[in-house]
Amino acid sequence: MVQSLKGIGASAGIAIAKAYRLEEPKLIVEKSSIENIEAEVQRFDDAIKQSTSELEQIKEHAFKELGEDKAAIFAAHLLVLSDPELINPIKDKMATEKVNAEFALQEVANMFISMFESMDNEYMKERAADIRDVTKRVMSHLLGVTIPNPSMISEEVIIIAEDLTPSDTAQLNRQYVKGFTTDIGGRTSHSAIMARSLEIPAVVGTKTVTADIENGVLVILDGLAGTVIVDPSADMVKEYEEKKAAYEAQKAEWAKLVNESTVSKDGQHVELAANIGTPEDVKGVLENGGEGVGLYRTEFLYMGRTQLPTEDEQFDSYKAVLERMEGKPVVVRTLDIGGDKELPYLDLPKEMNPFLGFRAIRLCLEEQDIFRTQLRALLRASTFGNLKIMFPMIATLGEFRQAKAILMEEKAKLQAEGVVVSETIELGIMVEIPSTAVMADQFAKEVDFFSIGTNDLIQYTMAADRMNERVSYLYQPYNPAILRLVKMVIDAAHKEGKWAGMCGEMAGDEIAIPILLGLGLDEFSMSASSILQARSQILKLSKAEMNAAIEQLLNMDTAEEVERFVRDMF
Amino acid sequence: MVQSLKGIGASAGIAIAKAYRLEEPKLIVEKSSIENIEAEVQRFDDAIKQSTSELEQIKEHAFKELGEDKAAIFAAHLLVLSDPELINPIKDKMATEKVNAEFALQEVANMFISMFESMDNEYMKERAADIRDVTKRVMSHLLGVTIPNPSMISEEVIIIAEDLTPSDTAQLNRQYVKGFTTDIGGRTSHSAIMARSLEIPAVVGTKTVTADIENGVLVILDGLAGTVIVDPSADMVKEYEEKKAAYEAQKAEWAKLVNESTVSKDGQHVELAANIGTPEDVKGVLENGGEGVGLYRTEFLYMGRTQLPTEDEQFDSYKAVLERMEGKPVVVRTLDIGGDKELPYLDLPKEMNPFLGFRAIRLCLEEQDIFRTQLRALLRASTFGNLKIMFPMIATLGEFRQAKAILMEEKAKLQAEGVVVSETIELGIMVEIPSTAVMADQFAKEVDFFSIGTNDLIQYTMAADRMNERVSYLYQPYNPAILRLVKMVIDAAHKEGKWAGMCGEMAGDEIAIPILLGLGLDEFSMSASSILQARSQILKLSKAEMNAAIEQLLNMDTAEEVERFVRDMF
Repeated sequence: MVQSLKGIGASAGIAIAKAYRLEEPKLIVEKSSIENIEAEVQRFDDAIKQSTSELEQIKEHAFKELGEDKAAIFAAHLLVLSDPELINPIKDKMATEKVNAEFALQEVANMFISMFESMDNEYMKERAADIRDVTKRVMSHLLGVTIPNPSMISEEVIIIAEDLTPSDTAQLNRQYVKGFTTDIGGRTSHSAIMARSLEIPAVVGTKTVTADIENGVLVILDGLAGTVIVDPSADMVKEYEEKKAAYEAQKAEWAKLVNESTVSKDGQHVELAANIGTPEDVKGVLENGGEGVGLYRTEFLYMGRTQLPTEDEQFDSYKAVLERMEGKPVVVRTLDIGGDKELPYLDLPKEMNPFLGFRAIRLCLEEQDIFRTQLRALLRASTFGNLKIMFPMIATLGEFRQAKAILMEEKAKLQAEGVVVSETIELGIMVEIPSTAVMADQFAKEVDFFSIGTNDLIQYTMAADRMNERVSYLYQPYNPAILRLVKMVIDAAHKEGKWAGMCGEMAGDEIAIPILLGLGLDEFSMSASSILQARSQILKLSKAEMNAAIEQLLNMDTAEEVERFVRDMF
Repeated sequence: MVQSLKGIGASAGIAIAKAYRLEEPKLIVEKSSIENIEAEVQRFDDAIKQSTSELEQIKEHAFKELGEDKAAIFAAHLLVLSDPELINPIKDKMATEKVNAEFALQEVANMFISMFESMDNEYMKERAADIRDVTKRVMSHLLGVTIPNPSMISEEVIIIAEDLTPSDTAQLNRQYVKGFTTDIGGRTSHSAIMARSLEIPAVVGTKTVTADIENGVLVILDGLAGTVIVDPSADMVKEYEEKKAAYEAQKAEWAKLVNESTVSKDGQHVELAANIGTPEDVKGVLENGGEGVGLYRTEFLYMGRTQLPTEDEQFDSYKAVLERMEGKPVVVRTLDIGGDKELPYLDLPKEMNPFLGFRAIRLCLEEQDIFRTQLRALLRASTFGNLKIMFPMIATLGEFRQAKAILMEEKAKLQAEGVVVSETIELGIMVEIPSTAVMADQFAKEVDFFSIGTNDLIQYTMAADRMNERVSYLYQPYNPAILRLVKMVIDAAHKEGKWAGMCGEMAGDEIAIPILLGLGLDEFSMSASSILQARSQILKLSKAEMNAAIEQLLNMDTAEEVERFVRDMF
């Protein structure tokens, strides 16, 4: 019997390939007495050497495919492998106790791991995780067991996993990995965002895919419908090959729109921009016809490191993005750290409800050194392109005024130092907290633009953690409450002659796009991979027609009713 | 030099008394060999006996002063003391190892504590805490050390503590404990709520009070201003005695209003109701002139126990409250558990952001057995008074419709069984989630009333955990965003001929009261101890005058501006 699993379509497209289970092998270590210690140490050195060369390949691959910040994970692993404070005690143990390499490695590594883990410091805990990863790799060579190396996959597969970590996704090779499916996660989980950025189909949150799919079984992955079909019949394979061809033909059609401007049937131009995390992402933006960067998440500059990035390091990144975008608008969001995004070296206190905690602008207004360094780097880079700056998690006008005052101080200081700063930098805010949407009319008098961050705005408005599966039914982009708040923000901006954009997942959603067009949204910022499809959709829409339906939509009772209505329109 | 500490005024009033530090004594146990085991066992039995009689007194006291649910804590402690599974191994150890009672007690208790604590189950962890408390008490008798027994205090004192636990507050004797002050906590923390319910002055969140105040030093506590004065001069004592007398005279004035109705200067009647947790709280409501119960928090029925309360147990409590309120309205909130309120025996999964998680109606719609039992108990009790039912944490109309349908099913079942159910039960919702405030016009068509829960509404609207001190500056009841949402809810209710109340801290706040009167709020539900002061305030206000100022208030930028404006009006 053919089995079909239902999950969440996290990245569009269809893949048909053999299942490749990404799972942890069992590494069983036994203690044994060794006579020839010299030979045993040689065996250990060989395992280190093999692990080193493997890690160098993985790091190289991550650097090319995914950029510097991802490669840094493996640079850290390589440091562990060459650390005499770890390696020497292992060899000493082998020599003095006359035990095998596996046992000595395990004993010493466990000692370090539990020492680091017992420290109440996130940075040290991450070091424990590094040692664990590296130990596993060396151990696998000693035991002759293969551990899965996603970067080493050399035939076409669909990856089956409980979840994918950043370290896993950093190793995926798009040439062979045709898609992946996981037990856990949602549309906004890390692995889902990564799948869209890699442009490979993905179905997440299936709950049971690792229990239900064996290695090597043929699998069909439908990232549009969110289904996984196990061991399909020949007819089914044929049907999905046709669907895949149709989807790819459609993508090819969309590709023709790469240099088109985005204008609705009745002549309304809107800007389609992309969300990026690193300068390397600009390539994908331009290839997909992005008219700007609507959200540059600067957190990545601060992550996967042992200390804060310097002003010059930041300047280089901001300059690179601005130059590569060749005068197209680039909206840079200042540091949004805290909440679910930790910086080990900052050692922030644990919070009971991190999503309602000390994060983003709240942290920046307190830790002003960090904030001022970033603002200086941005101001210095401002002459290299069309820079716009926005502050995240603004809840009150007081916060905005304080952040703006700090920016102005740094600008004045730079100018006093003789540094040229652009005089046309627009200054805006993320609208992702309900209070700010409700007060948008007041904010619009003082900001240059709004960017609605729907991922957070929805979670706060519905009081439902978007990462918590038990309340995920409340993550409702089409809830009339959300549409009303979005309307308040857009209307408030326009009343003051400002523009309003959106940079959450909702901006690229095909049900939301017609509504947002009707509401008058000026800029839609999304995954680069969604831009062409969105453009194709908007070219066929009439803004006036959608605008006429808005009143009715806002007066509906439920999200389901809104969704049904929009589906029925097309 | 006189020292003055600043904290948060958590409960109004002035107290002048000696400091009583509530702190844990050091209990140092040494192992020794015992010859006469019989005598040692006798010594152990004596300590058990003394502890038992002490606990019985404390339990008695808690029952009288604070009600059954608080007394249950000590019933659990007494069970531990008489548990042969704990006591016998201690005696065995003494006999076989010939060791002293202290050592045997410590060893066996620690074994049980670490066993229970290692279990991934909140209920078992609470048992570990019980054993720890009881062991401490028995140990203190063995060692001849006094542990602080707040219930045994027999002279007038002000308690100084890092924080007060439910178990501490359950033992406070109002006759002698004139006030308390703590290092941690905020206006909505457990100890603050408890202080208002005990009607004793309290200053919380001083950060350093335990470091700064020695036992026995004279202290002035000003619960209005939030100040603690250490070792005051005679002049200062005189000044504060006058303030205290003035405050008490004012309270006596207020007390005259106990049977008055609450009517503004220009003739607008509003209802002043109280928030309660148990049937015992009704006494305080009536003594303070409450015109109803605006919020009966039924969680307390479910807490401090080992299993769910039965339908009959619940029926008895609901009936008691309805009867004691003699036909005055009683708004019962259905179970609001989850979030920061855990039920050990339900074993709910740990959540990353419990305030945005699986709680209240979300849990009840899933765990329908629990919900239906509560609804049946309420429906059966409905003929004993003026019952209104409301659902907490409603975010969508879909949830309300589903909850209402379940209520209707249970009503039909009861009627089929021949049970008489009131036909005039009003059915409402808490408005504490931004989406629900924004959609109030739609909700108003289907509910009978709204009760605005400002504690949560503010925390979600501002995206700031109200228990997290690092973002407590964002807990802004006067933020125009909050006032606008409150207005939406009240206007929506009135448009459909329904009523709107408020049961958060804000309803009893003297800056908020004039604004809420101006907005047209129909019912204000607060701590019973705030009712008379609120009545006195409203009698002097003009609704029309406040209403005329609303437009201006809603168009202000910040909470500070609103607060200043209202203060300047009076």
